[in-house]
Order: sequence, then structure tokens, then C-alpha cells
Amino acid sequence: MSIKTNFEKHILNLQDKICLEIENLDGKSRFKEDIWKRNEGGGGKTRIIKNGDVFEKGGVNTSIVFGVMPELMKKRLNTKYDNFYACGISIVLHPTNPNIPTIHANWRYFEMYDHKNNIKTSWFGGGTDLTPYYIDANDIKHFHKTQKQVCDKFNLNFYPKFKKACDKYFYNSHRGEARGVGGIFFDYLKEDEENSIHDLLNFTIHSGNSFLNSYSPIVIKNKSKAYSIKEKKWQELRRGRYVEFNLLHDRGTHFGLQTNGRIESIFMSLPPLVRWDYNHQTQHGSKEEKLIKILKTPIEWV
Amino acid sequence: MSIKTNFEKHILNLQDKICLEIENLDGKSRFKEDIWKRNEGGGGKTRIIKNGDVFEKGGVNTSIVFGVMPELMKKRLNTKYDNFYACGISIVLHPTNPNIPTIHANWRYFEMYDHKNNIKTSWFGGGTDLTPYYIDANDIKHFHKTQKQVCDKFNLNFYPKFKKACDKYFYNSHRGEARGVGGIFFDYLKEDEENSIHDLLNFTIHSGNSFLNSYSPIVIKNKSKAYSIKEKKWQELRRGRYVEFNLLHDRGTHFGLQTNGRIESIFMSLPPLVRWDYNHQTQHGSKEEKLIKILKTPIEWV
Repeated sequence: MSIKTNFEKHILNLQDKICLEIENLDGKSRFKEDIWKRNEGGGGKTRIIKNGDVFEKGGVNTSIVFGVMPELMKKRLNTKYDNFYACGISIVLHPTNPNIPTIHANWRYFEMYDHKNNIKTSWFGGGTDLTPYYIDANDIKHFHKTQKQVCDKFNLNFYPKFKKACDKYFYNSHRGEARGVGGIFFDYLKEDEENSIHDLLNFTIHSGNSFLNSYSPIVIKNKSKAYSIKEKKWQELRRGRYVEFNLLHDRGTHFGLQTNGRIESIFMSLPPLVRWDYNHQTQHGSKEEKLIKILKTPIEWV
Repeated sequence: MSIKTNFEKHILNLQDKICLEIENLDGKSRFKEDIWKRNEGGGGKTRIIKNGDVFEKGGVNTSIVFGVMPELMKKRLNTKYDNFYACGISIVLHPTNPNIPTIHANWRYFEMYDHKNNIKTSWFGGGTDLTPYYIDANDIKHFHKTQKQVCDKFNLNFYPKFKKACDKYFYNSHRGEARGVGGIFFDYLKEDEENSIHDLLNFTIHSGNSFLNSYSPIVIKNKSKAYSIKEKKWQELRRGRYVEFNLLHDRGTHFGLQTNGRIESIFMSLPPLVRWDYNHQTQHGSKEEKLIKILKTPIEWV
């Protein structure tokens, strides 16, 4: 089976598996599926959950797109190749309860071809990262540890490298703070002396398969915790930083918009209700201040 | 009196005048002032109103900045000049009542100097535009008419040209719709055979002075109108499009962020409470659909 057939099968299975578990965790809402076609080739399956008992809004999307490389994509990838294939799964879940972190994950595979459709290069990209509203060090350690264990099985350099890349990527430079407490992030992961493309396929599949192990226990632990209106408002305010990152800095969002992607699938990442206060300041010694301090100076969790 | 002294005096007076009138219209909240300094030269006066009876959040800001041109500014303006001076007033008001449109306005003056501090070029920029949540043709006509009258006093080409530029600039290309119902927008307005720099100064001053005439009657007419929770939610959803424009497309926002402007002053434009629904659709024949139709195909109001 080719790498792409293998990976397509994986993301579609993973989408089913994750949606089922998220529905079980939620206990009330169900995912609604929209299937869309891309005029230039391929399409996707967008699955959205909303107004749940646990999840206020979330999406678990897959897409498989291919065809002639759009000019902007050529420019961005700095390539002269004519055709491409890309498939991936994207997950963003915004819980109602501010004691549960928002989670983001994405795993993708990319191939480029010359004008005779000979494959010229291919790579994997992706990762997963956590955006808490309050710091629970045990939850964050569990999340990082789960990802580290997957990485370590394949290559001991992966976790330190991808953890650092994650802190660097999900950074609101205009605020001087990270979007969240990180996780792993990798891109242009190509075969080399150390890792064959099959090794990388296996790694990316295992990283995806660890999603529920890394997130579900955090949801279960926190979903029944009480919270105040003040804590909910803090979550809505912090969601504003999430929007700022996604619209100002995220390459994926800009890439989707520039290549005429399906807007509603791209923007499923935006939180349901968001607040901007002028010049909000956290109180000295508060739980809110503790979060900001950690976002200003990312730390090692495992 | 030099152009810049003249214009500085004007924007500071206008800021006082507008804040006073907005406080009167609101009847409850008062502006809070933050004075800030720019390390590299100059600074500003940020004035924010919030949680009012009429205005949920708003800012009326002035800034006067100067010094060595930041590299990014040089690149963006495609110039080799070393020093600059810029001053301006920026206004964004987000009313609570969805029957009152959000208003944005900005008027600015720019000078560039060579390394010997000889002035090499100067221009005015600015305009004002309206973002309603429901269409009231009389309100929109009044707004456009007020701006047209100011334009026509100076140059009969101004209104048609600046109206068109406004529709083009405040456009959410990724949605295929305008941010609002326009107004006027102009940039790099330099002296030429037709208009001396003093004419342009006068025009920009008059355009600013017409702000309250164009907006206050709309506020007074609509501020006591009843509205439903559904209409409030629609406003919050449309505010999402405002955020999308400001973070994805607005040159002013990007310029501010790239030149290390004061974040909280730049982001005063972001609405207080914003909603993103997945794939929201308006009902056939509804007032919401009527708005979208007009945003998809901007029309002539006067």
C-alpha cells in the first residue's frame, strides 16, 4: 500500500475514532458532518460539534486535496513543481468549562510532482498543543509525557526538537506570550539517513493515535468542576488571544484563505464566544497571573 | 502656523469635542484616558469608554509619532528617506444596541525627511465608514450625504473616488463581502495642480469636523429602540467579521504591530463580545439576509 493510501486510511479511521470518543465524553451533542468538494480536485469531511455539555464548539476535519499547485502555494513553498497532493486531519475543541484546556491537533502528508506526474518530494507535518485557561501542572505534564513517549519510540531527538518548535510556532509575538503551553510541532519531516518515509509514516500515525490518550483524561478529570462567571469571562478573554494567533500568525489559516479553501472549515478553529477588554490586567498573586507568567516564559514539562 | 502644528491642534480639539459628545449621547459612562510615550519619539492619548448605556466599547485615540523610520515602514512605503512624522486621530465605537451601526473613522497626516531633516514629501489620509447590523437606508443615506457635502465643497471628484476606495478597502475578500456600507477612504493625498497642501489640510479638517454630524443623529434615532436576544446574537456574529477584517486585512493594524505600536491602543478597535457560529445561514426574506445582500454588492447611497 502506498504511503498516501496508508495515511488516508489512517486519518479517516482516526476521525471516526476521535468523534466517537468526544461524543461519549460530551454525553449530549453529536457531530454534524458536511462533505465538501474542491473544484480543483479533492475535498473533505468537516465534522462539527456544538452546544454540548462539555464542548461549546469543536471540529474534527479531514481533507484530501490534489491537482495543479496554486501560484501562491508555489511561491510559499519556493518550488517549481506543478502538481501536489495533500491530506490531513485537523482538530480544535473549545470546552465550555474553563478548567478544561482547549486542544488543537493536526497531522498531514504532502507530495509534490513534476509536470510528468513523477513524485519529486514528500513530507509529514503536524503536532498537537494545549491551551489551558488555568494551570494544572499534572494535566500539562501528562499531555507532554504522552507525546514524548510516542516521539521517544521513534527517535530520541524528536521530542526536544518538536517541543521547541511548538513553543516557537504558537507564539503571539505582538503580545510577547505563547498561545498555550505547547506540545509538539513538526513540519517538512522528510526521509533521511536516520528515518525512512515508512518510519515517518509510522511516527505520524502513532502521534495521531495518541491524541485521545493525551487529552481524554484531562477532560474527564475537569469536566464536572465548578467555575465562576469571572473564570468564564477569563476564558472568553483568553480565547481572544487564540483568535489573534489564528488570524494574525497561523500559516495554516493564511494558506487556506490564499488557496480558496472552504472558509467555514478553516474557521471552525475560532472559539464560539470571545471577549476583548481594553488593557485587562491580572491581579497580583492570582491564578490568572500564574498562567500569564508561564506563557511569557515557556518551561520544560517533562 | 505649519501644516503639522495646524493639524495637531485640530486632532486634539476634535478628540475633546467627540469624547464630550459621545459621553453626552451615552449618558452613563465616561472616557478613561491613558497617555503613552513611544520610546523612539512621540506618543499618544488613548481614550476608552466602556459598559455605557449606549456604547458597549469604544475608543477615541490621538497619536503624534516621529523619529527614524523603522525598516518595515521604509519597505512598506518603498522609500529611502530616513525620518518621519505622523499624527492622527482614530475612532471606533461599538454600540450595545444592534440597531445602531458601529462607526470607524481615522484622519492622519504624514511627513518624510531626508537625513538632513529636509521635508521631502507629505500627505493626508483617512476617512470614515459605517458598519450596520441591520439596514436603515435613511441612516446610511444621511451618513454618505454628510460626507459627500464635505467632499463636494473641496473637489467634485473626491466623493465618487473616495467612496469607491472605501468599498474596495473595507472588503473581507475571504468572505466575498464588504465589512460595512462604506463611507469615504483616502490615502497618500498629496498636493498637485488642483489642490494645494493647505486645501488638503482644510478638507481633512472639515471631514473630521463632520464626524458628529454624520453619526450623532443615527445614534439618537436608534438608541432607545427595543431589540431581541436573537438580534443581539446577530450583532455579535457580525462583529466576528469586523475582527476578521481588522486582523486579516487592515493595513493600519499590521503597520501598528510591525512597528511595535502600543497593542492596547491598536486593539481598541476590537469589539467587546464576539461570536463565531459554524456555517451560520440567514433565513430567506429576513432582515439579516437583506444586510448580507447589500454587503455582497455595494450600492450608491446618494
